Amino acid sequence: MSELRYCPVKQRWTIIAPERKMRPDEFLAPASPPPATSPSPFRYGYEAQTPPEILLLHREGPAHSGPSWQVRVIPNKFPVLRVEGEVSREGVGLFDRLTGIGAHEVIVENPDPAKELADLEVADVVQVLRAYRARLQDLRRDHRLQYILIFKNKGVAAGATLPHPHSQLIATPIIPTFVKQELRSAREHYARKERCLFCDIIRDEQRLGERVAIETDRFIALEPFAASFPFETWILPRRHSHDFAASSDDELRRLAEILRDFLRRVRVILNDPPYNLVLHTAPSFHPRPAHPDYWGTIEHDYHWHLEIIPRITRISGFEWGSGLTVNPTPPEEAAQFLQDADPERDNNAQDRG
Amino acid sequence: MSELRYCPVKQRWTIIAPERKMRPDEFLAPASPPPATSPSPFRYGYEAQTPPEILLLHREGPAHSGPSWQVRVIPNKFPVLRVEGEVSREGVGLFDRLTGIGAHEVIVENPDPAKELADLEVADVVQVLRAYRARLQDLRRDHRLQYILIFKNKGVAAGATLPHPHSQLIATPIIPTFVKQELRSAREHYARKERCLFCDIIRDEQRLGERVAIETDRFIALEPFAASFPFETWILPRRHSHDFAASSDDELRRLAEILRDFLRRVRVILNDPPYNLVLHTAPSFHPRPAHPDYWGTIEHDYHWHLEIIPRITRISGFEWGSGLTVNPTPPEEAAQFLQDADPERDNNAQDRG
Repeated sequence: MSELRYCPVKQRWTIIAPERKMRPDEFLAPASPPPATSPSPFRYGYEAQTPPEILLLHREGPAHSGPSWQVRVIPNKFPVLRVEGEVSREGVGLFDRLTGIGAHEVIVENPDPAKELADLEVADVVQVLRAYRARLQDLRRDHRLQYILIFKNKGVAAGATLPHPHSQLIATPIIPTFVKQELRSAREHYARKERCLFCDIIRDEQRLGERVAIETDRFIALEPFAASFPFETWILPRRHSHDFAASSDDELRRLAEILRDFLRRVRVILNDPPYNLVLHTAPSFHPRPAHPDYWGTIEHDYHWHLEIIPRITRISGFEWGSGLTVNPTPPEEAAQFLQDADPERDNNAQDRG
Repeated sequence: MSELRYCPVKQRWTIIAPERKMRPDEFLAPASPPPATSPSPFRYGYEAQTPPEILLLHREGPAHSGPSWQVRVIPNKFPVLRVEGEVSREGVGLFDRLTGIGAHEVIVENPDPAKELADLEVADVVQVLRAYRARLQDLRRDHRLQYILIFKNKGVAAGATLPHPHSQLIATPIIPTFVKQELRSAREHYARKERCLFCDIIRDEQRLGERVAIETDRFIALEPFAASFPFETWILPRRHSHDFAASSDDELRRLAEILRDFLRRVRVILNDPPYNLVLHTAPSFHPRPAHPDYWGTIEHDYHWHLEIIPRITRISGFEWGSGLTVNPTPPEEAAQFLQDADPERDNNAQDRG
């Protein structure tokens, strides 16, 4: 059984997951993903090889002869946290320990192992986002879980262990440190100004223009002023909204459009880079007013968004020791490259296989 | 000229270093280190190929016929921050910008490209630590610099771009976020209890024993209870001390012993893993009492230490999005492996070349 441990020095949580344990000699040859020729366990027709699905989404529109599902959500076979059991909280000297309760799911984005998000029809990207929304809505009813993190690792350098395009969901009985930091920043800004921090940033960036990569009437993709990584990009709804799970179907369609457009541009510029995508949205847990983490104004102060980080630079000891990263590409230049890129040049990318 | 930028959402600094800029097509084939056969620019006899040295340390003891220096500190040829100029602070909308003033130095650990820290005589490891101390003492006199971070990247996966064993120093006009977090944690603990947080942790771990890897009469190497990474190890002086730069020669010798012992054990267990080593010590900058970051009690509340992280697991989008890491090796097991390892088994490691 895994557990969560809190460090009073770093003020950070770690999941100690011995069920995923590797013995020292297993570290020696780091697990590489199976060669592209080995068949994907997530592919259509082999559903029996994975745990039974939590959710199936079908392709919309008239009947067709393709696979019977478009998106499939299954439990992770090697979960870092498990759904069964009670959350027990315990002190160990100066540290904290929690039982490893949570959820760990895999969102298989489409039945074809060779089709990346950027290759899908917009309607099929919408189905992936609908799966995100449905899982958030469902797991929020579990009051043991304080945060639900949805993310995607594409490529080995980004942490993917299977090449079949998929996202993951990890729900935790705590609010992770970086998430809490963001929530606090937003709350403090709102407390001083009665304005949303993210709305303020969007307005500034629209005025200046130099860090805006793509803008539609509903969404904006921008390179943050203090981007930690080259081509780090945030995609935010232009209209204030604290919760991705409250998005309408129409909003998901517009998000799918800008997301696919961005992914195609970055693929042209950086030649199909590994990347991480992380959904930042409101937590499930709303502390009461007496709690030091009370954020009674979250509807007003937080603003959900996607963060995408192409993984093209290495993280060294300097970054880990300091939290200070070195970014060789000014966000203004990254924005210019993205503005100039032609997403259509990438049209036949799906033929790459 | 590079600059530092602060993000009000993440509350983190980034160095935007366009002088290190890579164009998108340069990212495509990530720079790999030169093959082991290409000669090291840091080797003995080729000093003219690097900038003039800031510091040379010679081997101690009777005259000998080897190289005339043991440790050589030089400016980084591609610095992320520069010494020349004034620190100017500027607001840009909601963000902050600082000129990229600082220092970026390379500490060449020995004249032989094939000799890792673990291969050196204890007396030669002492010289490396003396170089750390001397550079800290010297740069502290520059009041523009608030923090001096000394670290080492060993191996490509740990961020090293040259195989010749070396450490680096980056001095910044701000206190990096993770460092500030640690200083705050220590100060808050002291404010409540009038005890050092780290001394408390050392006492707990000594009592329990299960996470102690190596202990000598002066130092302790322990696996922190909430270790974020497999075999993450902290080496702390057992006697309270907030500042590495105040260490005596005798303390540096005892530190060199335990550090070399640890590095040999971890090399045996993990087969010469890439690793990062980071020195955590007191900042140069002491804010005045009215400053929100005032820590008038730093001599009492902070405790310098080394952190060593073997880089054997990947960082995925989950970690970047949350600050929550997944560690498959419980620290208790890592400690057991380290206790059982025979550092002498590694004796002929230097023959590997």
